[in-house]
Amino acid sequence: PRYRPALACHLDGAGGDRGRRSRPDGRGPRAAGGCALGRGPIADPASLRPPGRAGGRGRVGAEANGRSGVMRVGIVGLGLIGGSLGLALRRLGESVEVRGVAHHPNGVVAAQQRGAVDRASTDLRDLADCDLVVVATPINQIRPVFEGLAGVVRRATIVTDVASVKRPVLEWARCLPEPSQFLGGHPVAGKERSGLSESDATLFRGETWIFTPVDGQELTPFDEWFRLVRGMGARPKILSAEAHDRQMAFLSHLAFTISTAYAQTVRPVADSELGGPGYRGMVRLAEGDASLYEDIAATNRGPLVEAIDSFTDVLRDYRERIDRGDRVGDLFRRGVHATR
Amino acid sequence: PRYRPALACHLDGAGGDRGRRSRPDGRGPRAAGGCALGRGPIADPASLRPPGRAGGRGRVGAEANGRSGVMRVGIVGLGLIGGSLGLALRRLGESVEVRGVAHHPNGVVAAQQRGAVDRASTDLRDLADCDLVVVATPINQIRPVFEGLAGVVRRATIVTDVASVKRPVLEWARCLPEPSQFLGGHPVAGKERSGLSESDATLFRGETWIFTPVDGQELTPFDEWFRLVRGMGARPKILSAEAHDRQMAFLSHLAFTISTAYAQTVRPVADSELGGPGYRGMVRLAEGDASLYEDIAATNRGPLVEAIDSFTDVLRDYRERIDRGDRVGDLFRRGVHATR
Repeated sequence: PRYRPALACHLDGAGGDRGRRSRPDGRGPRAAGGCALGRGPIADPASLRPPGRAGGRGRVGAEANGRSGVMRVGIVGLGLIGGSLGLALRRLGESVEVRGVAHHPNGVVAAQQRGAVDRASTDLRDLADCDLVVVATPINQIRPVFEGLAGVVRRATIVTDVASVKRPVLEWARCLPEPSQFLGGHPVAGKERSGLSESDATLFRGETWIFTPVDGQELTPFDEWFRLVRGMGARPKILSAEAHDRQMAFLSHLAFTISTAYAQTVRPVADSELGGPGYRGMVRLAEGDASLYEDIAATNRGPLVEAIDSFTDVLRDYRERIDRGDRVGDLFRRGVHATR
Repeated sequence: PRYRPALACHLDGAGGDRGRRSRPDGRGPRAAGGCALGRGPIADPASLRPPGRAGGRGRVGAEANGRSGVMRVGIVGLGLIGGSLGLALRRLGESVEVRGVAHHPNGVVAAQQRGAVDRASTDLRDLADCDLVVVATPINQIRPVFEGLAGVVRRATIVTDVASVKRPVLEWARCLPEPSQFLGGHPVAGKERSGLSESDATLFRGETWIFTPVDGQELTPFDEWFRLVRGMGARPKILSAEAHDRQMAFLSHLAFTISTAYAQTVRPVADSELGGPGYRGMVRLAEGDASLYEDIAATNRGPLVEAIDSFTDVLRDYRERIDRGDRVGDLFRRGVHATR
C-alpha cells in the first residue's frame, strides 16, 4: 500500500505558513475552508495494510533475514534514544540482533556494558549486512551519517531515523542508495537528560512513533519495522513531514523554548528554593540538551517562529485582561479544557 | 524575637514596582545599589529564636493548651490544602486535635470519612476554644472567614492562612481581635487537581512553608506552629509579604499563566495525542483550578503583570534570534543553568 495523505489538506510547504498569526478569536490559524493547518493526515500504518494481512502478525523478526531468521538492526548513535532502542529491541528476543555504531570508542564500551547492543564499533562499515539501520545521532550529524551509509548499505537495506524535525532529514536521505527504502521516523519520547546513561528499555512504551513517508511512498518494506516499534510498546502513526514539523513546533519545540525562557526570566528575580512542584514542572524541559535544542530550533525555524508568535498573541491577551482587572476565569478555564 | 527584614532592601509597597521591565542585559529588574528586588529578606524562623532555646524542641503540642496538654487546631476550608493539613496534623499524634469547618455539610462528612479531622461542622463558632486556626479556603473567601472568626476566637488564639498571595490577606487580618496573633502563611505545595479527594498527608513534605510577618512582629507566639509545620516535613521560611508576592508572581503565578496560555495556543493547531512527556509536563499546571487562578491573578495583579512582561521580553529575544538564524545554544544553555 502506498501512502496518500488521508485529508485533502495540504501545507504550503516548508515554512510557507510562517508568520501567520492566530485568528482574532484566539483559536489559532486555520486554512481557508476550516481545515486545520498542520493537523494534517494522521493514520495508523496498520490501516494501510491489505485486508488479508490485518491482524496476522508474524513472529517478530521471522520474515526478516532469509539466511538466518535473525533480523540485524544497526543503530548509529548510542545516546538516550539509540541506547533505549538497543535495550528495547534486545528485550524482544533472539530474533533481533543489535549492532551499534558509536562516535567514540568510549561509547562502544559503554553500550556493551549497558547491554544496549549485541556488537558495537565506531565503523559504519560494520553495518554492511544489516537489514535495517536506525540513525539516532543528534540531528546535525544525520547528513554525514547518511553520506557514510550510502557507500556501505545494500539497496535493500531499510534506513530510518529518530529526529524530531523531518523535512530536512527527508532531503538528506536522497543520497542513500535507494531513497524509497528510507522512512523518516520520530519516536515522541524522551527525558530531560540525554546520554546513554539515561537510556531505558521502556522509554517508548505508550508513546507515539511518527513516520513521515513522502507522497506515494510504498510502505510494505517497513512492515517489519512497524511490528518491532509496536513490540517496543509504541503506537506508529503516519504524518506528512510538513505536518509533523508543524505539530512538533507547537507540541515540543515551543514547549522547550518557553520552558527555557521561563527559567531565564525567573532566575535573576526569584529564589528557586521557594518554587513548588508547579515551578519545577515548568523548568524541567529547560534542563535538557541545549545543543540539541539549538539544532532543532535552527532546522525547524519557520514553524517554531510561527508557534512562538501564536503563543505570544495568546499571552498578550492574558496580560491585557489581567492588567485591566478583567475576570480571567473563563480564559483559564479555556486553557484547562485545552489540555483534555 | 521580633521580625526585622534581614536585608536593607525594601520594596516600594504593594504594586509599587509594577510595570518595571527587566534590564537590557536580560537579567531582570534590580533596585538601585544592586540589591535584588523581591529576593527580599529570607530567614529560617529557628534563627530568630533566643539562643537559649535553640535546639530545645518540646514534645509537639506539649506547651499548647494548659488545660489538657492537647493543642486544638481549627481548619477552615477542607479542600486539597485544608484536608492535607488535617491528615498531616493527625499523623503527628494525639497531642493535636483537628477541628474542621467546611462550607457545606457534604464537606463535613467527606472530611470525617477521609480521616482529615477529629471533629467537623459548618459552624465557625465550633472553633471558639481552638488554640490555633488555619484558614485554608480559596482566597476570595478569606476575608469573610476572618470577619466571622473575629466574633468567635479568643484574643490569644493564633490565626494563620495558606493563600499564595499575602499582601491582601494581611490587610484583611486587621479585623481579627488581635492582629498581632495573626501570621500569614503559604505552604509552597500543591497538586494540579484540587479538592479534598486529592488531599495527602505527605503534601508538605520537603516543601517550603513561607511566613510573612509584618515589620516588627513578635514571632514567639508562633513557635508551636513552626514546630508543627516542621513536624509535617516542611521548611518554614520568613519573607515580607511584598517579597513573597513578587516571588510567587514569578515562581508560581507566571508559571500557570504560561502553562494555560500554552495549552490554549496548541489546542487549535496540534493533535495533543502526538505530544510526548515534554508537552504533557508543560500543560500540567493548566489542568488546575481556573477559579483559583482567576482570584490569584486578580489579587496579585501588579507583580504578575510585571512577571509576564519580563518573560515576554526574554521570549521576544529568543524569537528574534531564532528567526535570524543565530546560534541560540548559548541562550538555551543560559536557561539550563538558570534551573540549577
